[in-house]
Amino acid sequence: MIVGIETGGTKVVCAAAEPGSPDAPVRIERFPTTTPDETIGRIRDFIGTTGTVEAIGLASFGPVDADPSSPRFGRVTTTPKPGWADTDLLGRVVTGGVPAAFVSDVVGAAVGELRYGAGRGASSFAYATIGTGVGVGMIVDGRPIGGDGWPELGHLLVRRHPDDDFAGSCPFHGDCLEGLTAGPAVLARWGVDASSFPDGVRAGRIAILAAYIAQMAYSVMLTVGADKLVLGGGVMQSPGLLDAVRAALPDLARGYGPPSLSSADPAAVLLAPAIADSPGVVGALALAADLLP
Amino acid sequence: MIVGIETGGTKVVCAAAEPGSPDAPVRIERFPTTTPDETIGRIRDFIGTTGTVEAIGLASFGPVDADPSSPRFGRVTTTPKPGWADTDLLGRVVTGGVPAAFVSDVVGAAVGELRYGAGRGASSFAYATIGTGVGVGMIVDGRPIGGDGWPELGHLLVRRHPDDDFAGSCPFHGDCLEGLTAGPAVLARWGVDASSFPDGVRAGRIAILAAYIAQMAYSVMLTVGADKLVLGGGVMQSPGLLDAVRAALPDLARGYGPPSLSSADPAAVLLAPAIADSPGVVGALALAADLLP
Repeated sequence: MIVGIETGGTKVVCAAAEPGSPDAPVRIERFPTTTPDETIGRIRDFIGTTGTVEAIGLASFGPVDADPSSPRFGRVTTTPKPGWADTDLLGRVVTGGVPAAFVSDVVGAAVGELRYGAGRGASSFAYATIGTGVGVGMIVDGRPIGGDGWPELGHLLVRRHPDDDFAGSCPFHGDCLEGLTAGPAVLARWGVDASSFPDGVRAGRIAILAAYIAQMAYSVMLTVGADKLVLGGGVMQSPGLLDAVRAALPDLARGYGPPSLSSADPAAVLLAPAIADSPGVVGALALAADLLP
Repeated sequence: MIVGIETGGTKVVCAAAEPGSPDAPVRIERFPTTTPDETIGRIRDFIGTTGTVEAIGLASFGPVDADPSSPRFGRVTTTPKPGWADTDLLGRVVTGGVPAAFVSDVVGAAVGELRYGAGRGASSFAYATIGTGVGVGMIVDGRPIGGDGWPELGHLLVRRHPDDDFAGSCPFHGDCLEGLTAGPAVLARWGVDASSFPDGVRAGRIAILAAYIAQMAYSVMLTVGADKLVLGGGVMQSPGLLDAVRAALPDLARGYGPPSLSSADPAAVLLAPAIADSPGVVGALALAADLLP
């Protein structure tokens, strides 16, 4: 068996699959992310009850050190999440010499959607989540970029929408992308989550969020020439938001950029996730399968 | 011998070197970029008079198709430069089965500075030019990103400086990064080039340009976690500009990002080119040398 683990900021997903079928786990378990000791203990329990584990893939919230040549490879590094800074997640989860892969959560989700989801067939590909936080995983020619745990494009600086006077909620930057579009920013600005906007104000709020998310899409597609970009996370489940981002993109690009940006139908390039439940854990399983002969 | 060629938008640099010394060309020739026929003819003359050529590296203005798996590999693609769109530059320059490498001009410059210039020792690295146009070449773990000729980060959208009311000169986007900072934008806005600002207004103009260039540096370092970023091109030769960009960066990052962005001294990360004369041609020579056993 292979095991894939996605450690998110709020919950953990563990899955076991046959090595040939990373997209079809035979067993899945979910639990909240609490302290490192408790969380890692539950992950190890899952692994210990899985039978013969041939390889493990681990996709973690971060920032992480995902550079195999680094002495700190496998660690969660500078997270503000209490107790988790500088945790040797990989070293404590994987013992006994089992082959293991370690990536950031968004890179894991990008691998999952690229191999088995909405990104199939793309050469360069990105997965963005707009949820509790904002993150982007990018894969160029089959390789994730940013082995040191970056990119963290969630903190891109964006141009303000003229109808948005919210100061932003990022503790570092105020009104960066995450500070204007993540779940906590939506809640602080409008008092409800993005799927609960009342009818009379929905369109205006969606337009504001879409203006920022489209700027991120533009930057990502210019940066890696992505063929496709999947937009996931809780905020993106707001009805109409994906279509609004699609509508905003051409007005930013104005015919410039790689074909996916300059001339393609945005509806063919900006996509909803196809793996409804945890693309990150499917990606982690795929990376585990890659380690086997 | 190996040959390196940098075809810029205004001039071409051809160089020949011993395979073991790409950074020390034994012969260099420069001429203006004119029509494709004339320009390619002069490049072929240079190659034809170089003796036994074992490999050729070609770094070209673009956008280019630099994806070896593409049927259009080696072409200048959608450039507005008269006569050059869809030119099979590689196919017309390199004949007779000589091994050849083909990259964009900024990737060539990035390779040159990374191997032999200011980027030595960096793991992830970027080279930006702010000149007639704005372009960024990025190398992650030794590999250029953007094989399809993108990234074209010159057209990033930036936040406006409050004292800058210039509309911008980009034909696509108006006030994108290139539309606000490239040589033609500087000339259109202030009537002089960036190295000729009068004393009384110099500081204010430098601050405006630095605000935009620092935003690009922030985005690049978030995107690829670059250890070092070299800032080249004619505009960057303006006295005080590099220091002003260094001063502006921490106020954007605010302690967030990879170590090079969050905690390092900007003067150790944002660097002037060390190869005064054509890092692109040195990179082209290095890529040619890589092709030999």
